Amino acid sequence: MNELLNTLSATELSRQLVRRDISACELVRACLSRIESRELQVGAWNYVAADAALSRAKQLDEGPVQGLLHGLPIGVKDLFDTHDMPTTYGSAIYTGHRPLADAAVVSLCSEQGAIMLGKTVTTEFATFTPGKTRNPRRLTHTPGGSSSGSAAAVADHMVPLAFASQTAASVIRPAAFCGIVGYKPSFGLVNRAGVKALSDSLDTLGFLARSVPDVALFAAAATGDLGLMKLEVSSTPRVALCHTHEWPHADHDTRHAMEQAARSLAKAGVPVRELVLPAAFAGLLQAQKDIMSFDLARSLAHERMHHSESLSPGLRELLAAGLQVSLEQYRAANQLAHAARGMVSAAFGEHEVVLAPSARGEAPATLEQTGDPVFGRVWTLLGLPCVHLPFSRGATGMPVGLQVIGRYGEDKVALRVAAWLMHRLLND
Amino acid sequence: MNELLNTLSATELSRQLVRRDISACELVRACLSRIESRELQVGAWNYVAADAALSRAKQLDEGPVQGLLHGLPIGVKDLFDTHDMPTTYGSAIYTGHRPLADAAVVSLCSEQGAIMLGKTVTTEFATFTPGKTRNPRRLTHTPGGSSSGSAAAVADHMVPLAFASQTAASVIRPAAFCGIVGYKPSFGLVNRAGVKALSDSLDTLGFLARSVPDVALFAAAATGDLGLMKLEVSSTPRVALCHTHEWPHADHDTRHAMEQAARSLAKAGVPVRELVLPAAFAGLLQAQKDIMSFDLARSLAHERMHHSESLSPGLRELLAAGLQVSLEQYRAANQLAHAARGMVSAAFGEHEVVLAPSARGEAPATLEQTGDPVFGRVWTLLGLPCVHLPFSRGATGMPVGLQVIGRYGEDKVALRVAAWLMHRLLND
Repeated sequence: MNELLNTLSATELSRQLVRRDISACELVRACLSRIESRELQVGAWNYVAADAALSRAKQLDEGPVQGLLHGLPIGVKDLFDTHDMPTTYGSAIYTGHRPLADAAVVSLCSEQGAIMLGKTVTTEFATFTPGKTRNPRRLTHTPGGSSSGSAAAVADHMVPLAFASQTAASVIRPAAFCGIVGYKPSFGLVNRAGVKALSDSLDTLGFLARSVPDVALFAAAATGDLGLMKLEVSSTPRVALCHTHEWPHADHDTRHAMEQAARSLAKAGVPVRELVLPAAFAGLLQAQKDIMSFDLARSLAHERMHHSESLSPGLRELLAAGLQVSLEQYRAANQLAHAARGMVSAAFGEHEVVLAPSARGEAPATLEQTGDPVFGRVWTLLGLPCVHLPFSRGATGMPVGLQVIGRYGEDKVALRVAAWLMHRLLND
Repeated sequence: MNELLNTLSATELSRQLVRRDISACELVRACLSRIESRELQVGAWNYVAADAALSRAKQLDEGPVQGLLHGLPIGVKDLFDTHDMPTTYGSAIYTGHRPLADAAVVSLCSEQGAIMLGKTVTTEFATFTPGKTRNPRRLTHTPGGSSSGSAAAVADHMVPLAFASQTAASVIRPAAFCGIVGYKPSFGLVNRAGVKALSDSLDTLGFLARSVPDVALFAAAATGDLGLMKLEVSSTPRVALCHTHEWPHADHDTRHAMEQAARSLAKAGVPVRELVLPAAFAGLLQAQKDIMSFDLARSLAHERMHHSESLSPGLRELLAAGLQVSLEQYRAANQLAHAARGMVSAAFGEHEVVLAPSARGEAPATLEQTGDPVFGRVWTLLGLPCVHLPFSRGATGMPVGLQVIGRYGEDKVALRVAAWLMHRLLND
């Protein structure tokens, strides 16, 4: 059965690893074997640390249980520094770059027994120019971005867990396009040290897996907050639908997913209500774009000044646009965001979470771009916890889903309700 | 007169450089000559890029005026990444480390014509274990920390401007102990990309110089906000004294400075009022300590796990303490900080700025520690703009001063009133 180990959930694998029913070596070999058979098609990895991972697995098998992630192989988005694997940030400028230290979350998860299996492809500096990764569900389609390799590797059963990060929609969109669970925590929950900085007020580290309990386990290990794993729901959750100001961007498949969710909620006895966001929130989409491009033009100042010829035309344009955002626009955008953050909890009213679109629809049938981040930008700017749930299929059979969004800092509620909803949505 | 160029203000040097009355080469040579004659005693530098700085100066002298900092030599705190100079973060772990990119502000200031003269000594990872730097005012005394080398280099006329950063009191305290001007901007004003991350919600980049117009010029170049340089005051500023909840830590010299400031204000026609901070603010000192040590234990997880033997005993203790701060304490500290940030503008009442202690008193007569950050922690946690003004002397003749603190985001007001106050305080 070892050849199927790579398809099990992290939660199940963890149980078996702790009981020593399976060894970390077996599991790593199963993942490596899957990578070997599929990587040429999928292109999820920049680097696979096969030998190092096996020798670490052996250590873990021979020693005591080290923590929550004991023996679990993890994909590390190549935006995260690693001291023992090259780190390119998705740019040729950094080919062969070897940081001296691991990103904080890499160290913290290693401390919990995780095995860093390799570096997964990111778009160029986690912006919009794709890497080599294809959508494992259909190789002609984009996996989304920027956490392209992480999402593809998890979806393709190459690894049960992978790190991601989101400045616009880089956790939620690739999760949606690849049909897995993505969790972007509340802003500030996860330590960002050692991850390439793009926009200080937007960058948020996140987690990809194939189930809600798996992202919860991963996040608990990264943050030390074991409460994130308590997913039992004691009463019917208070959920609203939120079509958002960006709703006109949703295509038929996402509209269908919202309708499907409404039916499931009704069936579960949840009154189907719409959360109407304040009118001022309509400006948040542009505010996020202004803040992100303004910050990028500065965060990547060195690359812009010294390596302009090695940047993609798309990124050069984005940085040039960032230099055109005036200080007044930037300040106004930040003020709007600040005001909206102060209003959003009240806007939630009695509801614990809202269900909103994750993406326009199915993954676009292209490898030239990673799809539209339109449904991620505002929630990222608001800093709220988001969990993508892959419960539906689009017109052509590709994955579609919705995201659960919680109040700021109420990540436990968001994950709990997400787990409950996922169960309902899949079984209706 | 060239041997005195290094003693002029950045503002005056800039004027002469732009008019080509002096050359950048002359200025760099004057600074290098000062360094040569004093560095053995002061120990401000980890690295001096003499040849690179001269060749850059030559380029600038031969080309068009490049920006606000055209031809001005700058000291770069060794917590900031530089692609052409070693970067150690004040730790033996990083001896000889060469990042591939400059920190964003280094690039942005270079773009404005600045010449990076070298890397200045920081304490170990900008925490509390001192480097080799001595206080140039009296070599037996600490220069303060963590921006020890930057403050000493500026105070000793080795360089007119130097980068600093503050997580507790690392801009304001060394400025106070060395008798120069230090400016810690509002949280979020200055891009932090490429500066070693310690605490995400506290780390703030700042500026050291010998006058308020000089720090304003420096900050304007780093942020692109030219309004920061408008220092004219059109009416009598509304200033209050704020003894703060930490006042029992002030020694005689700081008490004296507050009294002196009160007299100057009265003389200038400013009604001398006391701003009493809300009672809840008494908890902010401990909240800052909890947040900082909790974050440090995670941000430096790699160093803690892989290089523990190369950390100082003091830092090892601090990281161990950070692991003992519970999630509940951390959350409570962040909630208190959030609540206080929401209250502080109202607490300022009609006042534009407050004047508060910068440090307990004179620089301690020791090189074993960098002095107490007690008067910086709370303002850092609140994210408010702070400007240290060196206008007095302590009992033994060492520099003493106070800091001007503005409302969040009102950096222009803080700098403007600081310039006005400095003039009054020096001339009374």
